[in-house]
Amino acid sequence: MAEKDSCADGDPAELMQVLAYVEGQRQAYIERLLAYVARPSISAHGVGIEETAEFLLGYLQGLGMESQLLAGGGWPFVYGRNCRSPGAPTVLLYGHYDVQPPDPLEAWESPPFEPEIRDGRIWGRGVGDNKGQHLAQLLAIESWLAVSGGLPCNVIVLLEGEEEIGSPHISDCVRVHRDLLADADLVITADGPVHESGQPCIKFGPRGIASFELRVRHAERDFHSGNWGGVAPNPIWTLVHLLATMKNSRGEVIIDGFYDNVAPLGELERAALDALPVDTAAVMAGAGLARLDEPLERPFFDRLAAWPTFTINGFHGGYGGPGTKTVLPREATVKCDMRLVENQSVEEILDKVEAHVRCHAPEVEVIRQGGMEPSSTPLDSPYTQPLQKAFRAAQGEDPLLIPAMGGSLPDYAWTKILGVPSFTTPYANHDEANHAPNENLEVERFIAGIRTGAAVLAYLGTHS
Amino acid sequence: MAEKDSCADGDPAELMQVLAYVEGQRQAYIERLLAYVARPSISAHGVGIEETAEFLLGYLQGLGMESQLLAGGGWPFVYGRNCRSPGAPTVLLYGHYDVQPPDPLEAWESPPFEPEIRDGRIWGRGVGDNKGQHLAQLLAIESWLAVSGGLPCNVIVLLEGEEEIGSPHISDCVRVHRDLLADADLVITADGPVHESGQPCIKFGPRGIASFELRVRHAERDFHSGNWGGVAPNPIWTLVHLLATMKNSRGEVIIDGFYDNVAPLGELERAALDALPVDTAAVMAGAGLARLDEPLERPFFDRLAAWPTFTINGFHGGYGGPGTKTVLPREATVKCDMRLVENQSVEEILDKVEAHVRCHAPEVEVIRQGGMEPSSTPLDSPYTQPLQKAFRAAQGEDPLLIPAMGGSLPDYAWTKILGVPSFTTPYANHDEANHAPNENLEVERFIAGIRTGAAVLAYLGTHS
Repeated sequence: MAEKDSCADGDPAELMQVLAYVEGQRQAYIERLLAYVARPSISAHGVGIEETAEFLLGYLQGLGMESQLLAGGGWPFVYGRNCRSPGAPTVLLYGHYDVQPPDPLEAWESPPFEPEIRDGRIWGRGVGDNKGQHLAQLLAIESWLAVSGGLPCNVIVLLEGEEEIGSPHISDCVRVHRDLLADADLVITADGPVHESGQPCIKFGPRGIASFELRVRHAERDFHSGNWGGVAPNPIWTLVHLLATMKNSRGEVIIDGFYDNVAPLGELERAALDALPVDTAAVMAGAGLARLDEPLERPFFDRLAAWPTFTINGFHGGYGGPGTKTVLPREATVKCDMRLVENQSVEEILDKVEAHVRCHAPEVEVIRQGGMEPSSTPLDSPYTQPLQKAFRAAQGEDPLLIPAMGGSLPDYAWTKILGVPSFTTPYANHDEANHAPNENLEVERFIAGIRTGAAVLAYLGTHS
Repeated sequence: MAEKDSCADGDPAELMQVLAYVEGQRQAYIERLLAYVARPSISAHGVGIEETAEFLLGYLQGLGMESQLLAGGGWPFVYGRNCRSPGAPTVLLYGHYDVQPPDPLEAWESPPFEPEIRDGRIWGRGVGDNKGQHLAQLLAIESWLAVSGGLPCNVIVLLEGEEEIGSPHISDCVRVHRDLLADADLVITADGPVHESGQPCIKFGPRGIASFELRVRHAERDFHSGNWGGVAPNPIWTLVHLLATMKNSRGEVIIDGFYDNVAPLGELERAALDALPVDTAAVMAGAGLARLDEPLERPFFDRLAAWPTFTINGFHGGYGGPGTKTVLPREATVKCDMRLVENQSVEEILDKVEAHVRCHAPEVEVIRQGGMEPSSTPLDSPYTQPLQKAFRAAQGEDPLLIPAMGGSLPDYAWTKILGVPSFTTPYANHDEANHAPNENLEVERFIAGIRTGAAVLAYLGTHS
């Protein structure tokens, strides 16, 4: 170690005590996570959200934070701050306490809201996305307070209840409550999975997302396919033919102007992305995939993170039960999301989708379901190095630097509204199955998350 | 009336008594239909089928018929015969006692198996398709027996329990039990709706049907659309792109060789089809349609009856609940039927579908779900005239002669296996909503059906 830190061995002395404390609390902290996951908090269905927000408010107050629920127009943001370290930077720790709907229920091996431990993993809805990850951050704070009575840097906590429905109010919240957030120097989000290889990582920019529904209803009732087939238009065919004009079979979105604003990666970022290890055979085997998605000539991580997508989340119309039913259905619906990259914007893309649909199938209704802008933080931010050191101290391994990530997080609220750099430090295993049945979090990754959270506070504290 | 009948006024004297008797029984007969519709008999789900078959067996025995259940490999055929009129022709009256599944239940104004009378119609699953229609035939027999103690021609009754799942065993049944059926001179089926105009009609040939499912499963679990979008293939897109290679947006099936065997209509049939009245504006208004299906340059009745179709009955994959879910689903399924016309065959068409899928998307599984061959009876059959006379006597109106019909009935079993002409004499109103919620039958059409059934027996009896 050529470099000199404020602590002789690269680990602040107090951090070692904090990490030892975390180890002593291991069982208790796991129980705390199980109890937290057992609370359903499904933003899409409005289930359990307010109760969970109140619980978190109480918890932050117990940690001695100045805390409040911020009404943002939808489900509340839980806010807390503990800023008693003059001269040290202020980190905003962002997370979300809402979870995805758990269906299809029958595909779960244990009930989604009765978490249990099997095979070294905790199984339950939201355990990885995002309860286990922001709880790790909070337990890191709790551990610091227990060991030293204070925190090595200033902390703002902001926990959202609408991330899984696209964070529709986060930009308003940041604008309206700018006074509560403006002294943040950086934002850290522990969410999403670590790199495929299992190596920890720091991610610098999530894709954006634009969600919409395509709906068509040709009639008020279903028809008999024999007595009407050939004369009554079929809403499923209408959508099939429309969709085929929006993305071709080679995986290219062919909506006019869709790729126009895609920003090319910077040199550093391009090099980092190209340097990421990937074993596509292992990725395919792990996910049970016989092939990957096209266009294959575009590199794996480009397609996964630095290039926009058009995913159909669901297509439903007509008969889906057992056997056959000779029905010509009256209506059909397609739910879609598009992942966006830097310089694309939600409004621009939804406008282009709508213009396309108006032109190709004006009878189809486009229902805009909101979105999130893309975001990127440069790899050479001054906070990159303290974060790298923290990972090294907590996990004994250098984190990969990932310039772009596939999922969407509301980082744009930090980079584009607050104007500060934003980092994602994922703690979850790559096969966490978030948004799917049998979501899980490896126990050791949860513990490593608490350790890393504690180390991040330490190294930010020594940074000036 | 220039023509001389065996009865001075064109109505056999006894028929007048029978029709008067039917009028006297009106309320009782309606009650009988309500009780019959209240029996669920859903072949696709195996619900109530055997009980209904036993009930019908008892009823035919009560009518003095030699009756039995014919095991056909699936749900039983109910068979009865009453052949005591030497010299008179033998008519086989075919119908089906199974009904379509009633879902979506929430769309029904009254429960599907608790039939009720509103606005001059009886509402319930199967009331038009086909219980009200074959019950009308049986009540015509019952009325003849009550009035005269015998029937004017010989009758075989054959009621199937698998029509709504494609009559998979009817050809076997006809082959195995040929001795019970071979003396039939013609077959009459009362099923489907009358002409759009409300005018009664005789139909000479149903389309065939070939049903299949397309299924693709790319993985064992669902994915997060952010963490996998761009690299995990999407089964919905796979099916969308496959379907777009099977039928174009102009409504033309573009599967290799699909139209190769379509037989052109005969001269008489062509003229009859062209002569059929149609008010497309009224058809659209009645069905709540803003447009008709393409290709519009092909005449309405060609598309409806004399030309094959490719209908998607249902498309299901991924999330379909409220709000959004950023899922990239593991699997998707499409249920389809194709209506076939004379000289196309089920096997030929399913082979062509399978060859197409193997070539364009080999990862998609084609599940054959059976079918029914098309059938046609020439307009100049010797039985056309007695049937026309019967309609005139019972309904006071000439029936339209419709050379081809849109729906599928197992007439091929009569025309292609038994080798006799087959006629469909529909009694249901055109908006019966068969296969859809709120299926209904106009009370007066049910009564007219009984009258027509009685008259048909009379005029066949005077034919030799």
